[in-house]
Amino acid sequence: MSRSYTLVIDCPDRPGIVYSVSRIIFENDGNILESRQFEDRETGRFFLRVVFESGCDQAVLADAVATLGEGFDMDWKLVPTNQPVKVLILVSKFDHCLAHLLYKVRIGEIPIEIVGIASNHPAAALTATDIRDIPFHHLPVTPDTKAQQEASIKALVKDSGAELVVLARYMQILSDDLAAHLSGRCINIHHSFLPSFKGAKPYHQAHAHGVKMIGATAHYVTADLDEGPIIHQGVESVTHEDSPDDLIRKGREVENQVLGQAVAWHVAHRVIRNGRKTVVFKG
Amino acid sequence: MSRSYTLVIDCPDRPGIVYSVSRIIFENDGNILESRQFEDRETGRFFLRVVFESGCDQAVLADAVATLGEGFDMDWKLVPTNQPVKVLILVSKFDHCLAHLLYKVRIGEIPIEIVGIASNHPAAALTATDIRDIPFHHLPVTPDTKAQQEASIKALVKDSGAELVVLARYMQILSDDLAAHLSGRCINIHHSFLPSFKGAKPYHQAHAHGVKMIGATAHYVTADLDEGPIIHQGVESVTHEDSPDDLIRKGREVENQVLGQAVAWHVAHRVIRNGRKTVVFKG
Amino acid sequence: MSRSYTLVIDCPDRPGIVYSVSRIIFENDGNILESRQFEDRETGRFFLRVVFESGCDQAVLADAVATLGEGFDMDWKLVPTNQPVKVLILVSKFDHCLAHLLYKVRIGEIPIEIVGIASNHPAAALTATDIRDIPFHHLPVTPDTKAQQEASIKALVKDSGAELVVLARYMQILSDDLAAHLSGRCINIHHSFLPSFKGAKPYHQAHAHGVKMIGATAHYVTADLDEGPIIHQGVESVTHEDSPDDLIRKGREVENQVLGQAVAWHVAHRVIRNGRKTVVFKG
Amino acid sequence: MSRSYTLVIDCPDRPGIVYSVSRIIFENDGNILESRQFEDRETGRFFLRVVFESGCDQAVLADAVATLGEGFDMDWKLVPTNQPVKVLILVSKFDHCLAHLLYKVRIGEIPIEIVGIASNHPAAALTATDIRDIPFHHLPVTPDTKAQQEASIKALVKDSGAELVVLARYMQILSDDLAAHLSGRCINIHHSFLPSFKGAKPYHQAHAHGVKMIGATAHYVTADLDEGPIIHQGVESVTHEDSPDDLIRKGREVENQVLGQAVAWHVAHRVIRNGRKTVVFKG
Repeated sequence: MSRSYTLVIDCPDRPGIVYSVSRIIFENDGNILESRQFEDRETGRFFLRVVFESGCDQAVLADAVATLGEGFDMDWKLVPTNQPVKVLILVSKFDHCLAHLLYKVRIGEIPIEIVGIASNHPAAALTATDIRDIPFHHLPVTPDTKAQQEASIKALVKDSGAELVVLARYMQILSDDLAAHLSGRCINIHHSFLPSFKGAKPYHQAHAHGVKMIGATAHYVTADLDEGPIIHQGVESVTHEDSPDDLIRKGREVENQVLGQAVAWHVAHRVIRNGRKTVVFKG
Repeated sequence: MSRSYTLVIDCPDRPGIVYSVSRIIFENDGNILESRQFEDRETGRFFLRVVFESGCDQAVLADAVATLGEGFDMDWKLVPTNQPVKVLILVSKFDHCLAHLLYKVRIGEIPIEIVGIASNHPAAALTATDIRDIPFHHLPVTPDTKAQQEASIKALVKDSGAELVVLARYMQILSDDLAAHLSGRCINIHHSFLPSFKGAKPYHQAHAHGVKMIGATAHYVTADLDEGPIIHQGVESVTHEDSPDDLIRKGREVENQVLGQAVAWHVAHRVIRNGRKTVVFKG
Repeated sequence: MSRSYTLVIDCPDRPGIVYSVSRIIFENDGNILESRQFEDRETGRFFLRVVFESGCDQAVLADAVATLGEGFDMDWKLVPTNQPVKVLILVSKFDHCLAHLLYKVRIGEIPIEIVGIASNHPAAALTATDIRDIPFHHLPVTPDTKAQQEASIKALVKDSGAELVVLARYMQILSDDLAAHLSGRCINIHHSFLPSFKGAKPYHQAHAHGVKMIGATAHYVTADLDEGPIIHQGVESVTHEDSPDDLIRKGREVENQVLGQAVAWHVAHRVIRNGRKTVVFKG
Repeated sequence: MSRSYTLVIDCPDRPGIVYSVSRIIFENDGNILESRQFEDRETGRFFLRVVFESGCDQAVLADAVATLGEGFDMDWKLVPTNQPVKVLILVSKFDHCLAHLLYKVRIGEIPIEIVGIASNHPAAALTATDIRDIPFHHLPVTPDTKAQQEASIKALVKDSGAELVVLARYMQILSDDLAAHLSGRCINIHHSFLPSFKGAKPYHQAHAHGVKMIGATAHYVTADLDEGPIIHQGVESVTHEDSPDDLIRKGREVENQVLGQAVAWHVAHRVIRNGRKTVVFKG
């Protein structure tokens, strides 16, 4: 029986990569359903995402890719298409992004298994969201207990088997240590159009500046706060009539969509890191 | 010396197409720079656009593709990348799309050679546009002379060697005969968000309907008026304060961009017809 | 103690309206906080929305407006600003718009009191939404029971005191009788960019047409199905890669935002009917 | 005979302003056609733009407003609606914004009289633009001659009677002195989404940052470079495939529209400065 696989590759560019990959697929009884590629001419790096059907076992296919990968010095992964990704969500008091993600997961729009929700506030603070039976972890934090609280987060990630951590308006600044620990497997939604208005209260900064558009940015967390590789951005027009509270209200919609889209692309293996940037094969 | 080629293919889908194409490129000393593909699962048709560098002659490459193409029942074309396309522009009194296209061509943004401009109005009507030494053809038309005028257009297309005809707000309805004659090599900008408001005075129709957005649609001309395959669409918000004249003014910007983008994609061989639809590998 | 009132007026245009209204407010110890107006030059009708603070009783102010209104042949309403509006929501199986509205209401973003939810499906069908203690009414319908079911809806509107009925993807076609009964106090979200693709399965129609953008339209329900005055519209780009299911997925976001925005404007008394169109004083 | 006037006012907010203004208009045989107002609750300042018809002389109306203005401590101006504004355009080598503005002026879309074009490059550099008989001033500049060149610009503004100076991608940094001299009557288009990427080569900065949207900002020039009050902003999506040259190409469209819109609003007296921000009564 045939099933669908997603293969993602990045390696130094040189002639023959597509030929070699397509030969492996062809020779393993496969048929390519989707393929997207990108060559970064500045760095000479090549990126490829292929979705194909094959009757072969995943192990057989993985062996073939591994052999090829050595020759081309490839980073690669091969996963069954639409295999659910285990996700841990961190949140503070504003739960709109959480509610938006939960809805998408519950109707089956994004292949995600939510393995837990953690917050520095108690569950009772998430008044508008319906947690149901998702494990909830209250991890309060003070300046004195920060190291310990972050150790709890690390343990939670490990114990839950989370492959991705989503900071869904988690209003705590991660230590460099935790940021580095989660690097590449943690998506944050920043409530501004980065790199404008980094830091605290970006909507108030935007209002004081008199900008005519506000935005939101989904990016991978790295040790460099608010500077990790950007996955997606969105904007919304504002006017002189909009108060900071209006910006916050309009921002919620943008944050929901930008984070929801970034997470959906990530779990479909459409996002590949490219130094301080990303390659995003949009779906 | 190596140069860049663009290869565009469409054929019935079956395993091995990408493998075979990439093998030809690899064996002819080529390196793939860009590749986009699409399989229409409804119709089973496969579409591929590959940009590659090779030191081989175009004729040698074309022979290799031709041989492959017979085996796969392919429609294909192979052209040097960025080779200018000969374009004839038809226009009436509103010359904003014409002016916008001319600017792009003159600064080298789109690889086009404008072989002529034809209008049912005299050159003097295009008061805001700078025709310079582009051959201008005044082809007035009345109900009685329509057949004859369209014969002149056909002759102009033939004599000028035009590969593409752009109807840049050409306000005459083409006869079925001329539409069929130009089918697939003629792009029209319709000043509405099709399929809404087909026919005459779409902005007045939109105003009367009280819609909150207007749009423009670039599509290939076919015998079925206002129904040819859509290449690109754009919209702009409008309000109760906008009069029909305001819609016309806002519409100019949308028309400029939608037509300019559609033509740019077409001459980069990024648009492939797929029945009554198009496949557009956006750049 | 001073409080805020919202006054909405429409009447035949003639000199002195703004002067007279602002005099009443001035003479009743008021201060104008916001004011928006529109004169429809085609019909000669004038529309005004004023938010003002005053220390006077609502009854005193209403008397003054009423007296003025007779002289100018005004339709008018005067309400305390942000007074919650009683809303009944009708829904079928797709509950994204419902979930989106409930979230906004629960965090206090829109001043609404939801007096009930009614559906032709049982509550168990709304698997992703958290109804809590909102009265839920299962009103199944068959061709044979339609008249009776609609009578139940009418009764529900009456008994619940609903001032507004929201069709949040309620997939039943209202009879002319019910549509007329709810005319002007019922907002529907149509999942297409009207007037394109009226009727059933608009996303499938859009896909078959090969359009490059899909949209959603919020409009008042009138006896003329899918033709009531449009309040708001939104769009989203789509590509040849999007299947009908992808259009449905992308459409959910647009529907959520367009309906949410239309309802928010309605309950803030920012929308005034103007024949088959609307005047929308956006906030 | 009745004609249309535009009255723009800003002053400290207090009860009775609208009443007093509308009384003047009413008592001078006027009828209000449009009115927009804004109260800045942070600063307590009030802004009003009224378009009205009246049979009275401008001098009579101005006297009435002046008297009122003293009582309310108003800044005000009263101008015949659509009276052409004299504009001087400064440009360097990139002439797309210039070409776009000229087109709009020539078809009568914006009520502007272009009194001159000045550039630090010779006219021959503007290869794609059709200057016609507009006075062109070549004002070359080197670090040594900057003071002298700016003196020439000042003289040009004075001699031409320019009411507005438009920096249409003028790539020279104005001295603090010239910036202050032109403050409030000079609009610049900055080719980034300010406050991101101030300074030189913003598209290259954006590319290096890996942002997913680029933008443009039209703002009033003040002594604080790239920080003057923002009038309008626009954005365009970009992807990993876009090179810096692609960003420049996509940026041209955004710059054209943002600058064109900002200038159109300015000359319609729809923009009022509010400290470091603007109030924009969009048309």
